[in-house]
Amino acid sequence: MPPAADPEPITSPANPRIKHLVRLRDRRERDRSGLFLVEGYRELRRALEAGVELTELYCCPDLYLGENEAALVEAARRAGAEIVPVAEVPFRKASYRDRPEGLLGLARQFPTSPAGLAPQPDPLLLVVEAIEKPGNLGTMLRTAEAAGAAAVVVCDPATDPFNPNVVRASLGTLFTVPLVVADTPGAISRLRELGIRTVATTPSASQAHWEADLTGPVAVVVGSEQYGLSDAWLAAADCRVVIPMPGAVDSLNAAMAAGIVLFEAVRQRAAAPAGP
Amino acid sequence: MPPAADPEPITSPANPRIKHLVRLRDRRERDRSGLFLVEGYRELRRALEAGVELTELYCCPDLYLGENEAALVEAARRAGAEIVPVAEVPFRKASYRDRPEGLLGLARQFPTSPAGLAPQPDPLLLVVEAIEKPGNLGTMLRTAEAAGAAAVVVCDPATDPFNPNVVRASLGTLFTVPLVVADTPGAISRLRELGIRTVATTPSASQAHWEADLTGPVAVVVGSEQYGLSDAWLAAADCRVVIPMPGAVDSLNAAMAAGIVLFEAVRQRAAAPAGP
Repeated sequence: MPPAADPEPITSPANPRIKHLVRLRDRRERDRSGLFLVEGYRELRRALEAGVELTELYCCPDLYLGENEAALVEAARRAGAEIVPVAEVPFRKASYRDRPEGLLGLARQFPTSPAGLAPQPDPLLLVVEAIEKPGNLGTMLRTAEAAGAAAVVVCDPATDPFNPNVVRASLGTLFTVPLVVADTPGAISRLRELGIRTVATTPSASQAHWEADLTGPVAVVVGSEQYGLSDAWLAAADCRVVIPMPGAVDSLNAAMAAGIVLFEAVRQRAAAPAGP
Repeated sequence: MPPAADPEPITSPANPRIKHLVRLRDRRERDRSGLFLVEGYRELRRALEAGVELTELYCCPDLYLGENEAALVEAARRAGAEIVPVAEVPFRKASYRDRPEGLLGLARQFPTSPAGLAPQPDPLLLVVEAIEKPGNLGTMLRTAEAAGAAAVVVCDPATDPFNPNVVRASLGTLFTVPLVVADTPGAISRLRELGIRTVATTPSASQAHWEADLTGPVAVVVGSEQYGLSDAWLAAADCRVVIPMPGAVDSLNAAMAAGIVLFEAVRQRAAAPAGP
């Protein structure tokens, strides 16, 4: 069966579908609809590869930067997405980027329950609590993926992981690292069930992060930009570590702190590979 | 002698001084005037403590968040800054922040010549090449400061370090870490003169960053977000290292890469303190 011909492009910025895309920048509309935005070639490719359900793909060929866009649009069509051509003016309105690349997808939010955290041998996890800045959360996902993390657990999210700036800053790794959203007690009890040791990073610890054993089943736990970890996490963690800072200002971005401890774990795990 | 009474506040957003503050967001006007913007309490405090020359301080008490602003304004006045009261509407126009805190300084750019890089025992430096995003450069300065870096060398800057978003993302550490701006050959020759080993981070290296000796006089060299390090740096460096990434996506933000290698240096240096 040949593919159905594409409909006429949307030409008006006042089109209700364009307006709905704009509303999805707000969490309320994302929570209500269970949908979210995935913009950009790389992000959409990773979403498709990961089996994320794309319901609609808005495309504006005049804005394409490369030569692979048409193939991606076909892949999305085969995966069940409705393909919606859009003229440049309404596309620019729907896009949340400064330099839109002509591809904007609408996707269904996927399950993020702690029950989905599967047992596996010697996993490395990142747990983040109450992160406020979408860019930080996205960078944390990207960094955790690079470190080979088995999952990222987002506790008491101040920013939801389906925020378009999380998708963007994660470069689409939101779709490749298993993601769990939980409240802090739920996350603590699920990690205990799975026998995963928790290592909390806090300026009040006395042990350096490199002095802790980060091999075996371990979750690195990092708190919010402004307030650090909650008392609940500090009390529940199996160990507390500090990143020693020889400088005068003593302050690291929360995503940077997560990356430094995760890659110390990568170093330790390379030196002492997981047992049989 | 009592302090001179402050003049009447600026009330018009069309005031030429307000317009000049707005123009200083552009590099051209910063290069032309040799001035730059320092906004926010923390950033201004660090600038004053570091002896940066503030020529003017624009203040809008209606926007103050805390109780220490008046003392900071007095400190700026004593240091020679002209204090310029501004009403809320023109202040918001001059501010480049979403939530202005009522303090915006005009400062003189300070010298950043490679000749200013002083010899010292076993320094740790960060060298960054052609970084494009001001937020990344600012994060690199903040992270280098936290790692106790003796200086940050900015090579072939695509973004100038006096960009207001560098000041902001650095949290004012732009004023506390010695800063050098140079072209790549100039940076390489100055580091050689000083006997500082250069360790280039590149995905094409075979040695892991933790396998390199990062003690003694060492400069960690990191390239641009998009293109990595230039051939000139890769050829000139004393050693090349890769950050091993067990994940599938294999990509770290440039500032994150810098932080991971700098803090591996912190770890090694704590284990093997500098010699006598």
